[in-house]
Amino acid sequence: MKRKSHRRTFLKQGAVMGGGLLLLRPEASRSHAADSQTKSAGGPPPPANETIKTIGSLRTIHGNFLDKPVPESALQTILEASVRAANASNMQSYSIVVVKDRAKMKAVCTYQGSCMLLYCVDFNRLKASAESLGYSYFPDNIEEFVTASINTALAAQTAAIAARSLGIDYLITNGIHRGDMDRVWKLLDLPQTYCFPLLALVLGYPTEEPAYQKGRLNGVGVIHYENYHRLSKEEVADITRQYDDKERHLTLNDDWKAQGYNHYMDWWFKDWLGGSKPTEGDTQMLRFLRRSGFVEPPKA
Amino acid sequence: MKRKSHRRTFLKQGAVMGGGLLLLRPEASRSHAADSQTKSAGGPPPPANETIKTIGSLRTIHGNFLDKPVPESALQTILEASVRAANASNMQSYSIVVVKDRAKMKAVCTYQGSCMLLYCVDFNRLKASAESLGYSYFPDNIEEFVTASINTALAAQTAAIAARSLGIDYLITNGIHRGDMDRVWKLLDLPQTYCFPLLALVLGYPTEEPAYQKGRLNGVGVIHYENYHRLSKEEVADITRQYDDKERHLTLNDDWKAQGYNHYMDWWFKDWLGGSKPTEGDTQMLRFLRRSGFVEPPKA
Repeated sequence: MKRKSHRRTFLKQGAVMGGGLLLLRPEASRSHAADSQTKSAGGPPPPANETIKTIGSLRTIHGNFLDKPVPESALQTILEASVRAANASNMQSYSIVVVKDRAKMKAVCTYQGSCMLLYCVDFNRLKASAESLGYSYFPDNIEEFVTASINTALAAQTAAIAARSLGIDYLITNGIHRGDMDRVWKLLDLPQTYCFPLLALVLGYPTEEPAYQKGRLNGVGVIHYENYHRLSKEEVADITRQYDDKERHLTLNDDWKAQGYNHYMDWWFKDWLGGSKPTEGDTQMLRFLRRSGFVEPPKA
Repeated sequence: MKRKSHRRTFLKQGAVMGGGLLLLRPEASRSHAADSQTKSAGGPPPPANETIKTIGSLRTIHGNFLDKPVPESALQTILEASVRAANASNMQSYSIVVVKDRAKMKAVCTYQGSCMLLYCVDFNRLKASAESLGYSYFPDNIEEFVTASINTALAAQTAAIAARSLGIDYLITNGIHRGDMDRVWKLLDLPQTYCFPLLALVLGYPTEEPAYQKGRLNGVGVIHYENYHRLSKEEVADITRQYDDKERHLTLNDDWKAQGYNHYMDWWFKDWLGGSKPTEGDTQMLRFLRRSGFVEPPKA
């Protein structure tokens, strides 16, 4: 299976969620960073509410975590918060594997923090309940997988927000899906069927404060009103400009110009993605989803 | 395609996330409800932190919303909060369609609140950017879909928590996946390819305060340490008992005994699921994922 370029290889980067590298720039002034945050937020100022402030402060720490444990009481608070997320039929079709072993953490997701919460879609508890009462249970199709992966991600984000409110930083990564995915099953002894590792939430304390917070697109192209809005050429060009605006901090790399690109998005499509080609044949993920039982079997 | 029983038909229930019906029980005392919440949380008490308190208060309102608008400033605060969630390579591969038309809301997800945020996996903005700069972009496999659906769900849960902090209640539903799914594309004019409606977040104000908060399993079977823990028979039986414990409020229906079942889980597997049979052939969702371009094409 030949997909993507060397830029997306497993060891070089994993697959980081949260906007790639938070480049540490000691020279960037704190007030500048604060200004650009406000600018990128747009709209009316949020009310003085601690939860909105916590969410406004969300950020991703990219691997530069201290080797310092998260207090057990904080970890328990985060786990309790996590399970409060909504979930279909209150059946909590997920498992959370808490890993404190740093070597294992790295082997699973390529990052090391104070601890890692591996969020898995998981129907094995429900299957065990069904069988103990004499029922069969077949969560054996993509609809069950998608519903459960929504449950799982909602729980993970709730944990991330809870952690941030407690002064604990994080990284959410799907690096578990790079390289040989089977290692994740092996390292954590996951059931081969009806269990699928969806994402890793690495918790910890950064070695240095990031110099700025990543920005986000939050207008046309992301938010639509009443109907889906198809972008005009001008709107697409404006989005390209938004990525090029360094004040917005939307990029994984500020040096695209020095690297000979006209626009950040040139760098992103050409260098980061390494060119995009039509997928040929099955991805590793599809094979593992099939092994897990989450893809409908062909009609007999 | 014959799947699930009449209990899971579209019109009767949609597919509600958050634990099904919050039965309103005027007779249940407020202090009783508060007690059971504390009990179901377990572990040490969370620190006095507004965000943890907001998360601790998360709940689902099942359709009984007032016809009262959410203030525009609050909606904008929620949308800004939503996009702060982490996302792979900061590419925000989602769209949020804000719908205030109540008839349309109901047609899309079977519920009516003050407004609905339809969260879609969406690569069309990125494809338009690529094409405007002369690149091709093929997010045409299940890995892209899963990565984007994680981004999408993280953003949705951030919006839900932000809303709750502003005194706005919500329902997260995948009811959009029941019935004829094509209606969602038609009603909102969604692109047929590289766009997939993942979940609906309905925002609003409840007609009545729910009498209690749904409980959650938060021990063995959900949380694992260092390695995946396989349940013993005793642990499975204990989970059955936890669902049967009315103080835990884990159920969608407290009347399973009156309906002739020994355990809540008997009711759940037999009546709610209507018995589970192996999936035969493709589900509607798999067909729509294929149409959207998110399933690898067979090798030529």
